[in-house]
Amino acid sequence: MQIYFDNAATTPTIPFTYEGLLANPSSPHAAGIDAERKLSQAREEIALHLNNSLQDIIFTSGGTESNNIALLGFAFANQRKGTTFLAEPWEHPSILEPLKYIKEKGLASVHILPHKQWYGINSPTRLAAMSHVNSETGDINPVSTIAENLKTENPSTTVLMDGVQGLGKGKIRLDNIDILTFSAHKFHGPAGVGGLALRPGIRLLPLMYGGEQEKKLRPGTENVYGVLHMVEALRLPQDISNVAAIKHILAKIAIELPNVFVNSQMLDQSPYILNMSFLGVKAEPLVHLLSEKGVYASMGAACRTKKNSKSPLVLMGFSNERADSAVRFSFSALNTVEEAYAAKAIIIECVTYIRNALGYRL
Amino acid sequence: MQIYFDNAATTPTIPFTYEGLLANPSSPHAAGIDAERKLSQAREEIALHLNNSLQDIIFTSGGTESNNIALLGFAFANQRKGTTFLAEPWEHPSILEPLKYIKEKGLASVHILPHKQWYGINSPTRLAAMSHVNSETGDINPVSTIAENLKTENPSTTVLMDGVQGLGKGKIRLDNIDILTFSAHKFHGPAGVGGLALRPGIRLLPLMYGGEQEKKLRPGTENVYGVLHMVEALRLPQDISNVAAIKHILAKIAIELPNVFVNSQMLDQSPYILNMSFLGVKAEPLVHLLSEKGVYASMGAACRTKKNSKSPLVLMGFSNERADSAVRFSFSALNTVEEAYAAKAIIIECVTYIRNALGYRL
Repeated sequence: MQIYFDNAATTPTIPFTYEGLLANPSSPHAAGIDAERKLSQAREEIALHLNNSLQDIIFTSGGTESNNIALLGFAFANQRKGTTFLAEPWEHPSILEPLKYIKEKGLASVHILPHKQWYGINSPTRLAAMSHVNSETGDINPVSTIAENLKTENPSTTVLMDGVQGLGKGKIRLDNIDILTFSAHKFHGPAGVGGLALRPGIRLLPLMYGGEQEKKLRPGTENVYGVLHMVEALRLPQDISNVAAIKHILAKIAIELPNVFVNSQMLDQSPYILNMSFLGVKAEPLVHLLSEKGVYASMGAACRTKKNSKSPLVLMGFSNERADSAVRFSFSALNTVEEAYAAKAIIIECVTYIRNALGYRL
Repeated sequence: MQIYFDNAATTPTIPFTYEGLLANPSSPHAAGIDAERKLSQAREEIALHLNNSLQDIIFTSGGTESNNIALLGFAFANQRKGTTFLAEPWEHPSILEPLKYIKEKGLASVHILPHKQWYGINSPTRLAAMSHVNSETGDINPVSTIAENLKTENPSTTVLMDGVQGLGKGKIRLDNIDILTFSAHKFHGPAGVGGLALRPGIRLLPLMYGGEQEKKLRPGTENVYGVLHMVEALRLPQDISNVAAIKHILAKIAIELPNVFVNSQMLDQSPYILNMSFLGVKAEPLVHLLSEKGVYASMGAACRTKKNSKSPLVLMGFSNERADSAVRFSFSALNTVEEAYAAKAIIIECVTYIRNALGYRL
């Protein structure tokens, strides 16, 4: 038995086949023109999925590249002394690391906001970056509202929403958002494909140079097959009630076992991610034991697990004990309620086993 | 009927299916560890394909990104005043455009060599970039020999070989090469996947920031499926005699029609690319007419066709007349000799038709 509850790291890819030749969209013959047309249609469909709030669709190799183009590309194109880039310290490394580079290179001031205090920054905010859904906790951030307030303070603020954990998983409010980034493999599309949706007029410079693909912002032969595969995945019906039920079933472990907590900091929660702490149990051996029993979960964002960086949960104000025992379960439309019940029993068994082995006392 | 002779732009992708779950290689559970292992095996297989001359394999989104990492990443990591980067002016834009950026930003001197004169440059050569197979003409460059000579002059010269049109298409000499770049969709692998093969010890800095994947050189969730698909494509048997026969059949048009020339500047030629000029006929309408008749060819490298840049053929010393009438035919293992004969008849018919319509006189 395999119960895959690590969908925030990557989702199973839906099958996709394309019969026929997909030529290079830059090629001048009929097959090239056809590939170019398919790519344009894909852009239109994604823009329509976003209610045409953000109409310029730029395809990239994934979420990390998209966030890098959004942040570095914006910093390169909009260098003004005394302006500030804002983000919170529990964002994904593909947000925080480019910001660190921007700061180190003196391209802009960078304020990392540990107190959810977005307003009244001394220097004018040039760009604010925030994920729609926090990849560690599933918190849904009020990005649209924060964006509105920031733009009231300073109308020229650009707001980047990291939509990697949100797109394809329910409605996203895009009012006042200027840039949205996304990654296909987080919603059953292929790995290696993602993009940015831009409000027309946003100026970005490329990070790489070569051909003039993607409005001269991202060179290289377009991955037409991957893009069509991604669009197909975006068409999947979104049955949020199913994942919500799964999340509720697992969250009940916090009622049935002592000293088990659901980790979040917002009322508004994505049903796709559940972060729980099991006091007295280190997350890593628990995740390994769960894996042996066929339940696949993780200690948090996959991109972070190899790092020695401070836990985002500690940064959010949770104790070390709670952070060290935190496991992230993340779901997809392919998971079932039956899996949730089975996993719940296994989790309770494993936590109890480790606690007993360690002589854990309440 | 469709005869696809534009394989240098992109090749038809071989079918590939992977049964089972491919998790995020950074995930800590059994499925993540399995994905990480598959990725390592793929690296080993590619290194073995290169006879372990270049052992560090870094996966990227394709040839353009690989060339950008090689050039910009090298320039960022090895900034020394008074050193020079060398390349020839008929290289692919993913070589020339990053070099232009390096020059503009003052990261190094850049000499573009229009006379095949690689030696005796005044300032020490830090990096030399050269394609194994020229994507316009199919010329095979003596990269290994040039690299040896450059290193005799200056042992600390790093040599980048753009292997995009060469890998998977016959043997490549890698003596004295430090960096090789490649792209899967040029050898029947998927679009959006490529990489660099590095001699251990070569220092590069990343162009993007985030997770610590690919030895901290290229962040983002690895495209494991794409990499496995690429490795599968690299296993295809290389029947070079078949493409060589196709090239010879088409090249005979230069004997059967007046004022038709094969464009090349080296004796050593890839059998996969044939560039021919049809004097009196503009390449673009000819390519469109051929497309209507089912023969897909191009005016040159797809990445260049949208540009107003000077034709590489003119830079090589061909007349404007010859450059303007140049069509690139490029082949793959999937093409047949029968297609070559059929295409040959169609090309002769189309060229004769246009020449007659224009009243072309010898």
